[in-house]
Amino acid sequence: MTGFINYQKVLIVGLGMIGGSYAQKLSSLGFEVGALARRQETLDFALERGWIAHGRTDVTQEYVSQFDILVFALYPHAFVDWIREHQDCIRSGAVITDVTGVKRSIVPVIQEMLRPDLEFVPAHPMAGRERSGVEWADCRLFADANYIVTPTERNTPEAVELVRTLGCILGFRHIAVLSPGEHDEMIGFLSQLTHCIAVTLMTCKESEHLAEYTGDSFRDLTRIARINEHMWTELFLANKDELLDQMDLFISQFSRMREALASGDTETLKEMMRLSTYRRSFFDKK
Amino acid sequence: MTGFINYQKVLIVGLGMIGGSYAQKLSSLGFEVGALARRQETLDFALERGWIAHGRTDVTQEYVSQFDILVFALYPHAFVDWIREHQDCIRSGAVITDVTGVKRSIVPVIQEMLRPDLEFVPAHPMAGRERSGVEWADCRLFADANYIVTPTERNTPEAVELVRTLGCILGFRHIAVLSPGEHDEMIGFLSQLTHCIAVTLMTCKESEHLAEYTGDSFRDLTRIARINEHMWTELFLANKDELLDQMDLFISQFSRMREALASGDTETLKEMMRLSTYRRSFFDKK
Repeated sequence: MTGFINYQKVLIVGLGMIGGSYAQKLSSLGFEVGALARRQETLDFALERGWIAHGRTDVTQEYVSQFDILVFALYPHAFVDWIREHQDCIRSGAVITDVTGVKRSIVPVIQEMLRPDLEFVPAHPMAGRERSGVEWADCRLFADANYIVTPTERNTPEAVELVRTLGCILGFRHIAVLSPGEHDEMIGFLSQLTHCIAVTLMTCKESEHLAEYTGDSFRDLTRIARINEHMWTELFLANKDELLDQMDLFISQFSRMREALASGDTETLKEMMRLSTYRRSFFDKK
Repeated sequence: MTGFINYQKVLIVGLGMIGGSYAQKLSSLGFEVGALARRQETLDFALERGWIAHGRTDVTQEYVSQFDILVFALYPHAFVDWIREHQDCIRSGAVITDVTGVKRSIVPVIQEMLRPDLEFVPAHPMAGRERSGVEWADCRLFADANYIVTPTERNTPEAVELVRTLGCILGFRHIAVLSPGEHDEMIGFLSQLTHCIAVTLMTCKESEHLAEYTGDSFRDLTRIARINEHMWTELFLANKDELLDQMDLFISQFSRMREALASGDTETLKEMMRLSTYRRSFFDKK
């Protein structure tokens, strides 16, 4: 945490569920946290709870230039737009990080246009809930979640270490470092594909009355079917080629199971179930 | 509960996770519960905990004929075999029920061969966990679960009411009545399809290391990928035509989403997400 001695002021850009949770945790640790939000009510909500020390709805050099660390918790396109329009407001030497759920489609764009005296170390906190907005912020979400840093060749070891440390002090359970490409493949499979499956399941049937009959299986598989359609459509399209590959992989394995069932091939069915049982054991929370 | 005044002795046939949970709950309510199990250790486990008053590993008329209600918690084929071989041991006028997860493939077979002085009212407690065996029994599972009775034209209103009441006193949250065909369609979609999806997801990749990066989505969607391959293969095959229909419905909707993504059709993606968000709200536990 020594790296943080020199960094005491953090700006959260975008005070939604994740940005608000960052603010909450960092303020509780003694950092001076500021925020930019679109609506004054959002700032008021966080001010009342002591999650931020101050905030603005407009972007000015006077306000932004006081911060050493900037955390962008915006939709991907809004993050890119912000940097394009406002990066001149940022203090020289500041470190930028983010919480964006896709990397290949935005990291090179931002690295390319970023001033040489600023540094951007991308990160992705793998925490969320089926709600959006600062009123759902809750930094306890991080205690059981993973945090992934995806550095590029433009990053210095010091800045990467700073952003790793940020993950540690936010309380994440596991900190990993991946390339942006590895991140997007992994997220395409673990997160985006699973959201596609959940949404698909809920669109199959007029299923309101089915809630009376369901066991926990269906409920578990569709928890994430309650989804912010604007954010997730943007995330899917920003990782389109990788997500299509993961969807095709899933369809091919699912069809294999379907064929085994259709032909009464019990050995293939049991083999798939044995493999899934074995592999799932690695995902039990310790 | 008045119907139970005349029925004080219950036999659990098959003392696994579900059978054991029935025994635990019924004994705690003052019923005299007996059990048939394959292994003496299973009986000993339940005897030590007071979940059963007595039990046998062999089937004799002397033992079985004392019971007024018999609950079969066996694999589907084992239930059919048991009735074929041992129904002569059952007292005249006894009511038989079960916990089997498929209905069309076994209910008519059993109704057809059953002695006319016995009555079988099928039921399906929609409770489970990713474990098997009496040591995992826990009747608290029922408090949040649904219980489905699937009567046939051979049943008397009194016996249907008795088996409904059994669901009530076991503590199930919601008791429903469906035809065997409705049950199998519903279970094919809500339970069997979701297990196929979970197993498929876990077989897609060498994914052990992915646990370090995952969020809760993947963990939720694969909880049920830890699966008893013998039981579920039998259940899938016993409901094969219905499950194949549900798998095809899923593939068709999933492919629709894939095409929308591939062609950049954001409106279709958002429409599916809005629908899934709306429908999922009905599944929130009250």
